[in-house]
Amino acid sequence: MDIEKEMSDRAERIEKIIRSFLPEENEQNYYDNTVRLAMNYSVLAGGKRLRPMLMEASFLLFGGQGEAVWPFMAAMEMIHTYSLVHDDLPAMDNDEYRRGKKTTHAVYGEAMGILAGDGLLNYAYETVAKAISDAACGQPDGGQVSHMARAFAVLSTYAGIDGMVGGQVVDVESENLDPSEMTEEKLAFIYEKKTGALIQASLMIGAILAGADDTSVEQMREAGSLLGRAFQIQDDILDMTSSLEVLGKPIGSDERNHKVTYVTLWGMEHAVDEVKRLSQEAVRLLDGFSGDSTFLRELFCYLIHRER
Amino acid sequence: MDIEKEMSDRAERIEKIIRSFLPEENEQNYYDNTVRLAMNYSVLAGGKRLRPMLMEASFLLFGGQGEAVWPFMAAMEMIHTYSLVHDDLPAMDNDEYRRGKKTTHAVYGEAMGILAGDGLLNYAYETVAKAISDAACGQPDGGQVSHMARAFAVLSTYAGIDGMVGGQVVDVESENLDPSEMTEEKLAFIYEKKTGALIQASLMIGAILAGADDTSVEQMREAGSLLGRAFQIQDDILDMTSSLEVLGKPIGSDERNHKVTYVTLWGMEHAVDEVKRLSQEAVRLLDGFSGDSTFLRELFCYLIHRER
Repeated sequence: MDIEKEMSDRAERIEKIIRSFLPEENEQNYYDNTVRLAMNYSVLAGGKRLRPMLMEASFLLFGGQGEAVWPFMAAMEMIHTYSLVHDDLPAMDNDEYRRGKKTTHAVYGEAMGILAGDGLLNYAYETVAKAISDAACGQPDGGQVSHMARAFAVLSTYAGIDGMVGGQVVDVESENLDPSEMTEEKLAFIYEKKTGALIQASLMIGAILAGADDTSVEQMREAGSLLGRAFQIQDDILDMTSSLEVLGKPIGSDERNHKVTYVTLWGMEHAVDEVKRLSQEAVRLLDGFSGDSTFLRELFCYLIHRER
Repeated sequence: MDIEKEMSDRAERIEKIIRSFLPEENEQNYYDNTVRLAMNYSVLAGGKRLRPMLMEASFLLFGGQGEAVWPFMAAMEMIHTYSLVHDDLPAMDNDEYRRGKKTTHAVYGEAMGILAGDGLLNYAYETVAKAISDAACGQPDGGQVSHMARAFAVLSTYAGIDGMVGGQVVDVESENLDPSEMTEEKLAFIYEKKTGALIQASLMIGAILAGADDTSVEQMREAGSLLGRAFQIQDDILDMTSSLEVLGKPIGSDERNHKVTYVTLWGMEHAVDEVKRLSQEAVRLLDGFSGDSTFLRELFCYLIHRER
């Protein structure tokens, strides 16, 4: 399998799905059109669509069929996007560019950056609500509805203060501390929540919506945790070993910002070993399932051994 | 009925319910405790608890029993609170005080103000998700679940770009325009969405969760729309006729900010007549229901004829 080709084909298809769930724009009739433009600009500004891709692959691995996973894929990408929009704000990371494009607040102003983020987070749940509410009307037997309700619970928990927002908070607070106050435990907390939470939730939600049993969902959670950690350590490694040309952003930024990473805590050799160990464990978890996990396995390996 | 006494008794009881749904604080064990403190500070900084009060009263009017409405009351107040927290940010209204207390970003910093707002909005949906997911597991017959799913859809729609966020966006954009560009239609749009949407949703959700029929839910939506408009026009009137002592904030702020209101558009006499007309219509809608609407009727009148 040419994994890069496969990923880009899937990303293109997934982007069409996401697009179909985005709010309508209408220059003529809406007073509130600006926020719609800003939201859609943010979501369509690029990205690998990694989280919805993981969600769909997990859904297929457990025999999921049809479109039940679509609204959740779109909602996940909206939540991921809102977190970037707010993270880029002047009071947070103050970034004017992301993936070579102007950030949302840089184009639409700071107030609209805040409101577009709020709008996206809320719209993610509007999308889920519509799906659950349609299913609850159409199928009063409750089978699919109870899967969707559980997926909604996982999505909201992993996106919130016990998940992504929680990681963001600790990351923000750590920037004001002396680097010597960063511990391995706290760094693991930040990585697990800030990067790991939505990856875990994506893998879990795909499994839940396909009707996988509790043990399988728990294994996908664990695989997501390992993948998230490996992914983030690889990020730290690339920041020290890659080049501006390959990475698309200046290397060495962690060092310049006196940021504590696994590489500075452990040294390069241990960090490289740890990525290998975590990724092998994550892939091994996939072996236990009877479905075809070829794509997911290759995706795991690609993400962990990527060069940018 | 001594409506002020009744409102304050209910607010006290409702605050206990809301408190029971707020995130746990734990100084010792959580790296992410700051955001929990900031969220709880924001929610517990006072307020009339008007929206959950309307929701509960509507629930009772339609014969609702038990605690099914509680998580939605808490979620509604969290959403209302997050909107205030973000509205107070320096990039928005830049307010250091609200109801005589420091605003969230003034206490915890701007980044934490953004994250606490995000955390609250998300936590509102976590609260709803837990309720729906518990109900879906316990009662696979789907009756209560389908009410809750519909309530979730109303909550998210009225809180988002088609509701409160939409009104906020147009309000923010209007501040940069020449006051002569404000039209009656646009002002109605802002009032209906920014103030009206959550009031409408509260009345509708109470009815939906109590199992009211579609016509009744639609009438509560209409009552909420009339109430929201009357409430906001009364606000404009008070800003010109009240005093610092009664209102608790300086009067004449709209005029100083060159803000177009119904009073400046229509003149005082017409504005006062309009509040009377809207409130009579809203109360008349309550007459159609067989349940005891005494409290709701008096609450409507109080809100519209209030002096602060």
